[in-house]
Amino acid sequence: MLNVGIVGGTGYTGAELIRLLSRHPDACPKAITSRSEAGLRVAELFPSLRGYTDLEFIAPDSGDLDGCDVVFFATPNGVAMNQARQYLERGIRVIDLSADFRLADRSVWERWYGMEHAAPDLLNDAVYGLPEMARERIQTAHLVANPGCYPTAIQLGFLPLVEAGLVSGPLIADAKSGVSGAGRTANIGFNLCEAGDSFKAYSASGHRHLPEIRQGLERMTSDPVELTFVPHLVPMIRGIHATLYLRIPDRNVDIQKLFQSRYADEPFVDVMEPGQHPDTRSVRGANTCRISWHRPQDGDTVVVLSVEDNLVKGAAGQAIQNMNIMFGIAEIAGLDAPGMVP
Amino acid sequence: MLNVGIVGGTGYTGAELIRLLSRHPDACPKAITSRSEAGLRVAELFPSLRGYTDLEFIAPDSGDLDGCDVVFFATPNGVAMNQARQYLERGIRVIDLSADFRLADRSVWERWYGMEHAAPDLLNDAVYGLPEMARERIQTAHLVANPGCYPTAIQLGFLPLVEAGLVSGPLIADAKSGVSGAGRTANIGFNLCEAGDSFKAYSASGHRHLPEIRQGLERMTSDPVELTFVPHLVPMIRGIHATLYLRIPDRNVDIQKLFQSRYADEPFVDVMEPGQHPDTRSVRGANTCRISWHRPQDGDTVVVLSVEDNLVKGAAGQAIQNMNIMFGIAEIAGLDAPGMVP
Amino acid sequence: MLNVGIVGGTGYTGAELIRLLSRHPDACPKAITSRSEAGLRVAELFPSLRGYTDLEFIAPDSGDLDGCDVVFFATPNGVAMNQARQYLERGIRVIDLSADFRLADRSVWERWYGMEHAAPDLLNDAVYGLPEMARERIQTAHLVANPGCYPTAIQLGFLPLVEAGLVSGPLIADAKSGVSGAGRTANIGFNLCEAGDSFKAYSASGHRHLPEIRQGLERMTSDPVELTFVPHLVPMIRGIHATLYLRIPDRNVDIQKLFQSRYADEPFVDVMEPGQHPDTRSVRGANTCRISWHRPQDGDTVVVLSVEDNLVKGAAGQAIQNMNIMFGIAEIAGLDAPGMVP
Amino acid sequence: MLNVGIVGGTGYTGAELIRLLSRHPDACPKAITSRSEAGLRVAELFPSLRGYTDLEFIAPDSGDLDGCDVVFFATPNGVAMNQARQYLERGIRVIDLSADFRLADRSVWERWYGMEHAAPDLLNDAVYGLPEMARERIQTAHLVANPGCYPTAIQLGFLPLVEAGLVSGPLIADAKSGVSGAGRTANIGFNLCEAGDSFKAYSASGHRHLPEIRQGLERMTSDPVELTFVPHLVPMIRGIHATLYLRIPDRNVDIQKLFQSRYADEPFVDVMEPGQHPDTRSVRGANTCRISWHRPQDGDTVVVLSVEDNLVKGAAGQAIQNMNIMFGIAEIAGLDAPGMVP
Repeated sequence: MLNVGIVGGTGYTGAELIRLLSRHPDACPKAITSRSEAGLRVAELFPSLRGYTDLEFIAPDSGDLDGCDVVFFATPNGVAMNQARQYLERGIRVIDLSADFRLADRSVWERWYGMEHAAPDLLNDAVYGLPEMARERIQTAHLVANPGCYPTAIQLGFLPLVEAGLVSGPLIADAKSGVSGAGRTANIGFNLCEAGDSFKAYSASGHRHLPEIRQGLERMTSDPVELTFVPHLVPMIRGIHATLYLRIPDRNVDIQKLFQSRYADEPFVDVMEPGQHPDTRSVRGANTCRISWHRPQDGDTVVVLSVEDNLVKGAAGQAIQNMNIMFGIAEIAGLDAPGMVP
Repeated sequence: MLNVGIVGGTGYTGAELIRLLSRHPDACPKAITSRSEAGLRVAELFPSLRGYTDLEFIAPDSGDLDGCDVVFFATPNGVAMNQARQYLERGIRVIDLSADFRLADRSVWERWYGMEHAAPDLLNDAVYGLPEMARERIQTAHLVANPGCYPTAIQLGFLPLVEAGLVSGPLIADAKSGVSGAGRTANIGFNLCEAGDSFKAYSASGHRHLPEIRQGLERMTSDPVELTFVPHLVPMIRGIHATLYLRIPDRNVDIQKLFQSRYADEPFVDVMEPGQHPDTRSVRGANTCRISWHRPQDGDTVVVLSVEDNLVKGAAGQAIQNMNIMFGIAEIAGLDAPGMVP
Repeated sequence: MLNVGIVGGTGYTGAELIRLLSRHPDACPKAITSRSEAGLRVAELFPSLRGYTDLEFIAPDSGDLDGCDVVFFATPNGVAMNQARQYLERGIRVIDLSADFRLADRSVWERWYGMEHAAPDLLNDAVYGLPEMARERIQTAHLVANPGCYPTAIQLGFLPLVEAGLVSGPLIADAKSGVSGAGRTANIGFNLCEAGDSFKAYSASGHRHLPEIRQGLERMTSDPVELTFVPHLVPMIRGIHATLYLRIPDRNVDIQKLFQSRYADEPFVDVMEPGQHPDTRSVRGANTCRISWHRPQDGDTVVVLSVEDNLVKGAAGQAIQNMNIMFGIAEIAGLDAPGMVP
Repeated sequence: MLNVGIVGGTGYTGAELIRLLSRHPDACPKAITSRSEAGLRVAELFPSLRGYTDLEFIAPDSGDLDGCDVVFFATPNGVAMNQARQYLERGIRVIDLSADFRLADRSVWERWYGMEHAAPDLLNDAVYGLPEMARERIQTAHLVANPGCYPTAIQLGFLPLVEAGLVSGPLIADAKSGVSGAGRTANIGFNLCEAGDSFKAYSASGHRHLPEIRQGLERMTSDPVELTFVPHLVPMIRGIHATLYLRIPDRNVDIQKLFQSRYADEPFVDVMEPGQHPDTRSVRGANTCRISWHRPQDGDTVVVLSVEDNLVKGAAGQAIQNMNIMFGIAEIAGLDAPGMVP
């Protein structure tokens, strides 16, 4: 049984880690930290967990994570880069759900995140934890940078086509997220009266997930990549829907076959039949990324639809998937539950 | 491994049975019927189940349920009373999620449901499947009438106080349900544009769950019971919240202790601390009924708050709990997952 | 044309006042204050008002409200009691949408609101602005205490029956509100991920609107009144639904006639046919309180259903109705628009 | 005072016409037809209209529309093309909110709508009622084809840029609509449990509004137009958000100026400041189309964001705007109300 530590457990990804681990056969949370809530029972903050955990939040500087096999950082950006090293040095593996180790290029990271990187030397050690692209490297990694929510859905939607070198011209990712993507935050913009029964784009001029997606695309192909990425806020709790536009002039490509063969052995990518439309609720609470594609009017433009639960495959679920890979546990352990519908 | 048959699997309770059984260690769906959708793959109707079931809907008259150990009826009212006998006669146990066998008094049933009962002799054999009140009888039952969604939350909220003979005067149950309580139905009243961003009472003059709740209350006490029950429609998908009002003039009663001791051994009833307020999302997808109580202004009126997921503890989850009890399986098997928050 | 000043215009009631005044034929906002947003254009904070107002928020201490005929306080509790006097002394009438002047009994106010009252002498001058109970006094009032949102729906639902002396025994008000009732506040509990797709009671042990409702009931009858009031949070933006329970043993009372005759001349109270159920959306954006009643199972308990838009008849609309009455304008001026459905 | 007739008034556009006309100074509904609901009071179907209309639905074949100056068709596709002529021949002007007269090319219409056109000769007389493109022709029109909801938001977003000949390469319109866009229909797919708390694309391979948008684009420019249009369903009631992607390599174009000057005299198009993001709620219930634009990463791709209320500027409001233009009434009459926020 793996002992799991969670740093920064008062947010949605922290709560989701505990929820998912509560049914994991081979791992369980041993300690969970929070600076602001130290001493509070986890189940008091999240009554849904009553009966499923007896843990209390502990102060982050206590040594109680020492016995852990793996530590998840479910912290805001800027924390893990300062604290990961102390665990790594004690032989504890680290999976960071924040953005601190996602970009290999330090200067790009510093520009988009607006701070100096505190552990640039670790950037080389960190493995970008998208299992569908880097499973082997993850197996031996000590520090995994868990991908962002948008980047996961978007990269998995683009991957088979970009990798095959089929794409000509600029890429567009029009992406939509439920409000939980913003975290558990008391921001007026996410009040139900503001975000409910309404829809809008945000950060259209530039969002931090852009360089992360671009880095992923560049690893798929040696061709230059031009990407426009516009995120939107959907009046729902969980779910990301990415609508991807690519130019693939060649009508003879068997796109369905490309997707199916690329993901044939992937336990958490589901390729639908041609012409179908995945909805986000079909993956609500599940670790699945569900994909379909269209070629409207038989034109040059191909449309890929890719959905995931931003808190599961887009965060905590994928982090546990990475843990399973790192420790040689069955990859689906604790994650083989269907989406909750309705 | 128990073989499970499901009659009428295209509704929400049918889909929820499959979702919950997908993680049950000792039972799995073997066949699922639907008159209208015979031949369709279950996962085509419910894409969330892609990868979790290969079943197709089969015509209800086929003999494919013969090998089943237990058959769930997830059908509209009026079906099970015509079909249950054929399974019982072949030694297959039956759990009916509809209302057909819930009322012991045939004439009351016929008045509220507006049809003649097709199997009145079975009413005596049927055990009303509220485990917290009838666990022993359920163990040996061949035909279980699974309680209604409102009746479950309301009876569990009233039970310790009524049973203890503390209540004086009329009872009020002001109950609120998410839209899934109405089933998977193409009724304009449940269109998101009609039921969304709005709130209303319905059936205030009389709802079919009233006699069922009253029957339960009368089993708890020999005192006469006067009950007013008003249901409301909440713009949400899952969840029932019952707000119960009782007159308990005696201030010396330790209500908290009553609740805690009554439910001490119940795996699926969670009594909160005094003064807390359960929210429905804390049991979203879980088989838990969560309860707290208040005595406002230290007056004669006690207020009990009781929440459940209408599709789980209020339907499919409780049905599986009953199955576990009937077959001597661990009662929590397949059901020990926390609510999904957020 | 009346010149209107608004103190504290960055909340929902402030924005709603401007929205409603934008179509008022005889009044228009002249100045609007905000300590935190001074200098900001109102339409920048509320883009829905682009093209409908050129006002900027001004600092609250500026003298720009001097030319106003009436000043609305759309401030948190505790502000108007400190500032109303300066306007009253200059002959400017004041309508306070906060709770500062709602309770005639200073000690009750101080107990429930947890602070000392800064202008207890004004409590006698203040008229509680529920037009259906106090129209004549409002006409000549200089200081109107605009009723709370729950109290408006609940008092109007109880009024005809309590006034007629028909009620025997305790009253119960089970009330439900949309999230905007909590104001425009960055509280995590009202984040869409927390308040959405969920339902709960709150303040069940005692809510500040209780003494206000009780005061109103005591003005309707000389009988002693016992009231239990439990508010709930509905995952919707606007709307209040009150479900009221009263004991009226006398079956010969013509309740429908009582309601209809009591409200025959009221422009903003709509009595439905017996047996109907009002939904909150039917008054979305409108100044109407819509009411129906039931006598379930022909028993002693009568159930009254009363809905309103908490921001309109429950706040800004009723404030404008009061202004119209105070200034001898047609009472429906600016308020005669139907609810927005869907 | 204009007498208005409405054919097919039981849907959302019919109800919205009545709501908007209730505050129109120069027009009022005189008769409203419905085959299925003849004899029913309109306010019984839509309780929000209680007190605002005494009309009953009448059978569509009655002659009661004879005294009308204008008849709105708020009917499903295929009705107006069979019935419009009878009104036109009696000198009654017709505004058709359905799709029957939107496409000038009969064969394109018949291919996309799957039926033979019943009045192809009227296609030449019909004026496509987008005031921002065809105000002068609308003034003298007898038959106006009111634009579709998506086409209105999308054409207004593209118009200044396409008209100016700036666009190079294919256009993409990624559009999102609230559920009311599907009409008042008892379809299971729009049940709150199916469409709520979820997001999906639909008709990605081809939607009927595509040829309508393409026709509009071709009227703006002589250049060939390639368009990909993917609609999505948002879990909200009202609102359309179009995210438009265009290639404009020339960095020297002053896009903001282009938008502002093109729409300077348009009462119902609001151009925001550069870098802003309109949300759909800002136009909830209003006849406004609100637009902003971005040039992400200063690249070749320009992103235009365009929002409207699909039932107002996208249907009933624009129809009244057209009526105002046709009858020489002030264009904003009955339509100058801000969006309802929150």
